[in-house]
Order: sequence, then structure tokens, then C-alpha cells
Amino acid sequence: MWLRTICDMSFEVEIPTTFILMLRQRSGANQWVAREEYRIRPQVPVYEFTDNYGNLCQRLVAPVGPFEIFTSSDVLINDLVDQAPGAPFVEIDKLPESVLSYLLPSRYCESDRFNDMAASITEGHAMGYDQVKAIETWLRNNISYLPGTSDIAISAIEVNERQSGVCRDLSHLGIALCRSLSIPTRLVVGYLYELEPMDLHAWFEAYVGGRWYTFDATQSEITGGYIAIGYGRDAADVAIFNQFGPSVTLETQRVEVQLIEEEKL
Amino acid sequence: MWLRTICDMSFEVEIPTTFILMLRQRSGANQWVAREEYRIRPQVPVYEFTDNYGNLCQRLVAPVGPFEIFTSSDVLINDLVDQAPGAPFVEIDKLPESVLSYLLPSRYCESDRFNDMAASITEGHAMGYDQVKAIETWLRNNISYLPGTSDIAISAIEVNERQSGVCRDLSHLGIALCRSLSIPTRLVVGYLYELEPMDLHAWFEAYVGGRWYTFDATQSEITGGYIAIGYGRDAADVAIFNQFGPSVTLETQRVEVQLIEEEKL
Amino acid sequence: MWLRTICDMSFEVEIPTTFILMLRQRSGANQWVAREEYRIRPQVPVYEFTDNYGNLCQRLVAPVGPFEIFTSSDVLINDLVDQAPGAPFVEIDKLPESVLSYLLPSRYCESDRFNDMAASITEGHAMGYDQVKAIETWLRNNISYLPGTSDIAISAIEVNERQSGVCRDLSHLGIALCRSLSIPTRLVVGYLYELEPMDLHAWFEAYVGGRWYTFDATQSEITGGYIAIGYGRDAADVAIFNQFGPSVTLETQRVEVQLIEEEKL
Amino acid sequence: MWLRTICDMSFEVEIPTTFILMLRQRSGANQWVAREEYRIRPQVPVYEFTDNYGNLCQRLVAPVGPFEIFTSSDVLINDLVDQAPGAPFVEIDKLPESVLSYLLPSRYCESDRFNDMAASITEGHAMGYDQVKAIETWLRNNISYLPGTSDIAISAIEVNERQSGVCRDLSHLGIALCRSLSIPTRLVVGYLYELEPMDLHAWFEAYVGGRWYTFDATQSEITGGYIAIGYGRDAADVAIFNQFGPSVTLETQRVEVQLIEEEKL
Repeated sequence: MWLRTICDMSFEVEIPTTFILMLRQRSGANQWVAREEYRIRPQVPVYEFTDNYGNLCQRLVAPVGPFEIFTSSDVLINDLVDQAPGAPFVEIDKLPESVLSYLLPSRYCESDRFNDMAASITEGHAMGYDQVKAIETWLRNNISYLPGTSDIAISAIEVNERQSGVCRDLSHLGIALCRSLSIPTRLVVGYLYELEPMDLHAWFEAYVGGRWYTFDATQSEITGGYIAIGYGRDAADVAIFNQFGPSVTLETQRVEVQLIEEEKL
Repeated sequence: MWLRTICDMSFEVEIPTTFILMLRQRSGANQWVAREEYRIRPQVPVYEFTDNYGNLCQRLVAPVGPFEIFTSSDVLINDLVDQAPGAPFVEIDKLPESVLSYLLPSRYCESDRFNDMAASITEGHAMGYDQVKAIETWLRNNISYLPGTSDIAISAIEVNERQSGVCRDLSHLGIALCRSLSIPTRLVVGYLYELEPMDLHAWFEAYVGGRWYTFDATQSEITGGYIAIGYGRDAADVAIFNQFGPSVTLETQRVEVQLIEEEKL
Repeated sequence: MWLRTICDMSFEVEIPTTFILMLRQRSGANQWVAREEYRIRPQVPVYEFTDNYGNLCQRLVAPVGPFEIFTSSDVLINDLVDQAPGAPFVEIDKLPESVLSYLLPSRYCESDRFNDMAASITEGHAMGYDQVKAIETWLRNNISYLPGTSDIAISAIEVNERQSGVCRDLSHLGIALCRSLSIPTRLVVGYLYELEPMDLHAWFEAYVGGRWYTFDATQSEITGGYIAIGYGRDAADVAIFNQFGPSVTLETQRVEVQLIEEEKL
Repeated sequence: MWLRTICDMSFEVEIPTTFILMLRQRSGANQWVAREEYRIRPQVPVYEFTDNYGNLCQRLVAPVGPFEIFTSSDVLINDLVDQAPGAPFVEIDKLPESVLSYLLPSRYCESDRFNDMAASITEGHAMGYDQVKAIETWLRNNISYLPGTSDIAISAIEVNERQSGVCRDLSHLGIALCRSLSIPTRLVVGYLYELEPMDLHAWFEAYVGGRWYTFDATQSEITGGYIAIGYGRDAADVAIFNQFGPSVTLETQRVEVQLIEEEKL
């Protein structure tokens, strides 16, 4: 399926402020970016670099006044995300080096504190994909998904105490639980077609059976429509924008995801 | 200045053939890619990766039949490239690690064989930028630039024997000469506004005075209009496309570079 | 000064267990490793790789029974660590790309929660080195250094609540405070000559004035004798050993640091 | 088998000269470095870094006068190198990204010029390991191995013209032939136990059947005893030492490889 994404943000900047953005989508095994726009106004110099996780990031200094970022892309993805019940746990000594850092606890995923809880939730499930699926199901049934309720990121421990959260919060708890089982797990930030209400979204991927699989406890079932913008250990690594200064206000943010017909590309 | 680039290629493929492409431009210190299109027909899975030089590459298997690649971008660059007469040679022990590999001889730049010639050409010039400028001037005056005359890449030694070549050939000889003076030098493939006749272009960059500077012996003077697609030690590293198989024909290739007004972006 | 280090560990392993070790010291700007031993018994295959922070890591599967690791090195370091009162804060847009990830909050350094406290501690101090020094002094005066009291890592928030901790804990709080001021800060694990009681040690480095400087709130003053084993965002990234399994006991650990005369090398 | 290596070099330096050394062996899938010494006299600051191929390199400025480098290591390797007749060719679209650069022509391996010759030598052999073995056998039978005869590196084309060469030369021709068949191939520099006459050695590795295999046309048969120091596309990438200046003389070089009993480690 071909999707067209738009993410349009406007800021009010009171003093010149450095931004680090992560809004250039990359083509990968599961998505092909055939068109991309990335415009900023006013135009200032931008330095693009690749971070430790392979994301393309942009660094710039926004001047005083209104600052606008417009991004849009046409992306081809599969109609359905792959699922693999029974896909086995990969022993640590067999994991590719590139996934090892996704075993470690991180800012919002204190996996070193969830051993017992993860064991309890996944009891009786085969090691690997089925454990992750059990965790996703548990999250769906036990942590209320309340989009739009949280401004600042909270950690898995805090999510577990509140028993509710936004998409990012449910993912953080899911990641912490999976990592405590020694399953590499990462946060993905991106777009989801037909998300209600439409916004940027976050979900998680677990490495089982020799590859990454998609999980999302906020949806009643996983079908398709996921477009990744960035990957990381948690939301600390995958901020769509980080501004380093106290005097910036996000005034508006518009997110759209449309189905497009190939002929109209 | 804002430029719009187009590179459109069509191939005829007789047996399924793997391509490695380098046609996704990156934003960098000297260019901002505000819009980009990258379309292939028929649509096949594409895997994008970053090579040792930071270029984004695409790997795919083209099926039997016609295969088309269309890329286009809107890029902001400075009106004039920077020049820095007198910029000093950087001692090897002060060079950033990332530029060290550009000191070594490479496939088409046998810098280990040009010591005497480089010394002779640059005699009396200050070490650094002025040496490179002397080499560029020497190339312009001594090696005939004959666009469109060469199909296969030849090396600096061969270029020096023929005393003529395409843009890539002049650059290879320039690179070999600079490296023999221990100046890090790299090949750039990309677009040049108002190039006559219009085509993809190649030039070289030398690291002096703490940064990379642009040199191009094919033009009577360097002004501006350079858009980079890829960087590498020489043309072996920076092929716009590498096809691994004997049965592919490049049927057509169209390259355009247009000046665009910002309002029309 | 030349120092000889020894770190000798013995484990009892009940089921075959994967270890990821970080015990191969690297030579760097501040230390030269002239001799190194790294022995394991029983001998099993070891795969060495470089992590995201440049550390050399070793992955192996320890068999059932006793498992011993012996490392030793002869390292040349400066007699005194550099100090630089007045070294300025580096604006975010001027930081090298490689240090940007040290601005982010991490598992044990919740820098997103320390803005007010860091502002209060550093009030009246010049931005940069002097702020970090004020934080180090504050830690020394307000957080009791109690070596040997903690088994599991606790986070900066928890350290701040307890008002005491081991070397790692004081460093984590120091890092969280510095990062909340947008100063890149990292944890270092290694050896300290004449540490009392002798053990592996942890301290932190802050990037100000264009380079990394050493800070250590556990010592009444910083002189010299620091040898780094590994760097990372916090203790989650810099574990001397990570074992992935429940059935491993660290039976003994011996750490020594001796001054050696160059003639006896 | 446990081997002890020694490489001892002394230079006479007339003006301060930057060296880039590649003399720190790394542990890898096929070798475990249990002890290592790396001493330089006089002691100067050394900066160690990792190059594009994963080698540890050391950069330093040697002062005027005698300059000595002593390295030694104890390394565990398998008694026999693996061989795999019939191991298949890996299609380009299935190769890991990390091996793709070993498909390209390089300074001393002009693989773009050997298509017909490689096809002729390997005619009738199964694609993959058997092709490489046919090339190794052809080299052994057709290119005279004359250790100690060459000072400066010559390229595969030149080796083919001379019909003789040192270990590095035979490897370069082997690499060029393999790459022209789209088999990733790399040069290895290191030690070989019982090499006659003893010296540093060079051989090549080809990626077939999903991993790297060792080939060496200078020996009548490949058994074991290979210890790698560095990997690269060819000798331009894998110089044990590169000195950047005209006024350095290598006065003596001593290489030893001894079998050691494990008890004496």
C-alpha cells in the first residue's frame, strides 16, 4: 500500500535555539520512501548526521520568531505486518552484534526491575515471539491507552503504577518487560494509517526468530499501515525534535496519513 | 540558489540482476535537500544502507524486462563555492580520523607513483590550498577535457599517458597528484548547473585548512552550482549504479539541472 | 606514570551462560596500553566486537563449573589529570556529532528531572567547566561516599533520595545534573591508583572547552592515576561483565593497581 | 595451537615524522589474543583509532633519532584452517552489507580488467569455493613465489605480466581474479607459523558459503598457523606502517613465530 504522510509543525522561538530533529525517514527492509519533502522556514543552515541507531538527524539553530517545519513523504509498505507465532527466542550468543544494545535497560525502560513481572505474564508461553505477544496482550488488557493525556515521558515503572498511558508509555512498559526476558526490543516512532485520533505514533519491535517483528498494544489487532521515522532504545533516543533551550513553544502540529493510489504518485 | 535535479535512467534487463545504486542525495554542510523523489519501475524490494563513506546506497534485484529509475531533488546550495588561497596544509598527525583513508592510493588514483610529478607541478607554491590550485591549473592546461569520450574508467597513470579524458579522468589524476603530497583528496560525483553538455559530473575535493574545498579542472573557473550525490576515494567507490551481471543495457539516461525560484518550490 | 593493573575474577556457573565482557582496555588520548593479558579458563571461543561507544567487548558462553577471567595491563598515563577552570560551555550546535548522545537522559541518569536542582547548585558559576566543578563539589559535600554498600545499580533520583552511594552512584547523579545543563557527560569505569579500598572504580567525564575532562566526587581532590576500561552513558552501557542467566555466582574478585618503574617493564 | 609472535622494528628518523601503524592484533572469530605487548622507544603520545575495516591503528609522531617498535602476542588459533569444497557462491543480493566493499576494484587489484582470465581459469568449476580454489591452484602453478624480491607494491596487472612476486603480489592477483567473479575477497596481513623464510606474510580470504575462508598460493598446501594482524581491500589499506615523510629508514626488522605450550603461557 502507498501512503502519503505529512507532519507540519510551527514553533515560536524567543531566543536562538539549537534543534536536533529526526524527521528524515529512511528506506529499509519494510518501507520504500519514493518521495520526501523536508522544508524549514526561515531557511537556515542544517547539518545532517547519522546517529548510533542509524537514524538521519538534522541539527540547526532556529532564529527568533516563528519557525516552521514541513515534512511529507510517499512510502510503500506491505499491506500487513508480518506475524510469526512460534518464532523462537534467539540465544544471546547467536544475536547479531547490532542488536545487543537493545538488551540493556534504558532511561524509560528499566528492564532490570521487571524480571518477576515478565516471568509471571509470560508463564506457559513458548520462548520468543509468543512471550512478546503475551506481553502485548497483557498491556492491552491491563494498561489503559489514553491518547493525548501525557506531555512528558514517564518510565515503565511509572506507567505500571499509573496503569494508563499514551502509546509511548505502553511501548516503554512492553520493552522493559521483553528486555527482562533477554529479548532485544526497541522503540519505533512513526506514522500509523487510520490511527484515531491521528497523531505521531509509537510502537515497539522485538527481535525473535532472527528478525524484528512489530508489536502495538494500543490497537485491538495489528494489521498494517506502520511507517517508521526513527528507532532507538526508548523515547530518549527517538525524539522527533529536541530543542536545547527554555524559550520555544510548539504552536501547532498537524499529522496526516493518506492512502494514495499508485497512478497518482 | 535553489536547483532542481533530474536523473532518469532506463535499462533493459535480460536476466534478473542485482543493482547497487547510489542515487539518494544526502544533506550536508554545503547542501540542503528539501525535496527528493526516487522511483523505480517495476517496483521491487529495495534495501538501503550506508557505505564506508557515508553514502546512502540501494540494493535491489531488477527483474527481466525494462527497468526504470527516476530521481529528482530540490536542493539549496550557496551561489559560490568557497575558495581559500593560502589555506595551509594540515599535518598528518592533526588530520581528523575520518579523512585518513583519503590519503591512500586507490584503484584509479595511483598516488604512490606521482611523487616527482606532483613536486614538479607545485614547486614554489605554498603547501596546502595553493598546491591543489596549482595542480588544478596544470590539469586544465595540460589534460584535454573531452566529455563523452570514455566509457570505462581509466586510472591516473593512463590519463597522464593519454593527456585527455572525461571529468572523472581529470579528477582521478588531480587526486593522485594531491595524495602524493599527503593532502587528503576525494572524488565527488554529482550535478553541475549549466554543465555543457549536461550530464552527471565528477570533481574532487581536497582537505586543507581544516575542511574540504572543491576543485574542478574541467571548468575555466569554479563558481557554484555543485550538488554532490556521493563521495569516495575514486570512481570505484562512487558508482551511480553497479550492476552485477553481464546482461543489462543502459538504454537511456536523461540528466537535468534547473534553477528554480524559491516561491515555486 | 606507569601502572600495572590486575583484575582477576572467578565465577561458578551452573548452566551454560553467555557473558558479554568489557575488559580489554583501549589506548586513547590519555593512556597507552603497552602490555595486556586477557586469559580465560577454561578456554572457550570468544568473539570480540566494538560497541556503540567504541569499547571492545567480548562475547562467550561459559560452560558449567568454575570459570576464571584474568586481565592485566601495563599502562602509561600522565601523572596528573588535566584541569581547566574557566573552560567554556560548548554550544549544542558546535558539539562534535560523536558527543551528542551524551546529552540524553539514560537509565541511571534521569537528566530530564534535574533542571531546577542543577540550576540551583551551579548558580553564580561560569557556564562550562566551573559548573561541573560546582556539581562535583556539591556531590562531595552532600552525598556520602560509602564504598562497598551497594550491589545493584540505582538511578540518580534514587541516589539523591538516599544521599549516599558508591562511586557509580555519585557519578550517576553528577552526570544527570550536568546533562540537565546541556553539558555532554559520560560514565567511565576503570582503575584508580591508590583507591581505598582497592576495587574497580567509576567516575565521570564532561565535555567542556572542546574536550573531555575528568571529575570524581569520591576523592577529596583529583590528582592522577585514572585508567579507563570503558565509556558509556551510564552503568547500563559500561558493565565489566553482563551475564545472561540466573545461575552464575561471582566467587572472587581481585583488583590491583601497582606503580611500576619503566626499567622493569 | 598457541603461538607467540614477535615483530620488532627499528627506524632511523631524520626529521619528525608521522607514522600510522597497524600492529595491534584483534581477537576475532578465528583467533584469541591472550597476551599482547606493544612498546615504542622513545615513548611518545600515541592515538589509537579504528579504521573502516575494523583494524586498530596507531598514529604518532616519531622524533629525530632511532625509533623502535616492539610488538609481541600470544594467540590461540585452530590447528587447521577451515576448508569447504563445494561451498556455494553467495548471490550479491544476499551478501551482508559489511562485505560489499570487497567486491570493488582497488589500488592493487584491478578486478575490472580480469573478467576473461578469471572465467578461463575457473571454467568447469562450481561457483563459489571451488572457483577460488581453482584460482589459488592456478597462481601456485603459474606465478613464481619469490619471497624477498620486491620492495614496492605492484598491482595485479603488473604481477600477471611479471609472472612472479612476493606473497602480497600473488594475493593481489588472486583477489583481482576472485572479485571479477563477484566473490568478495580481501587481503590479510599477518604471521604464518613455520613460514620460510620467516617474515610478515600476506594471504587472502574469500567470502563464500556465508563466511570468510583462507587461501594462500604461496604454500603447497594450506594447513594452519595463520594469525591475522589486519584486513583490507589490498596492501594500500593494510600497511603495517605508513610513514609520511621522506627521511625515515627501516634499519632492522625481526619477525618470530614460536609454538608455545599452554602451561607456559
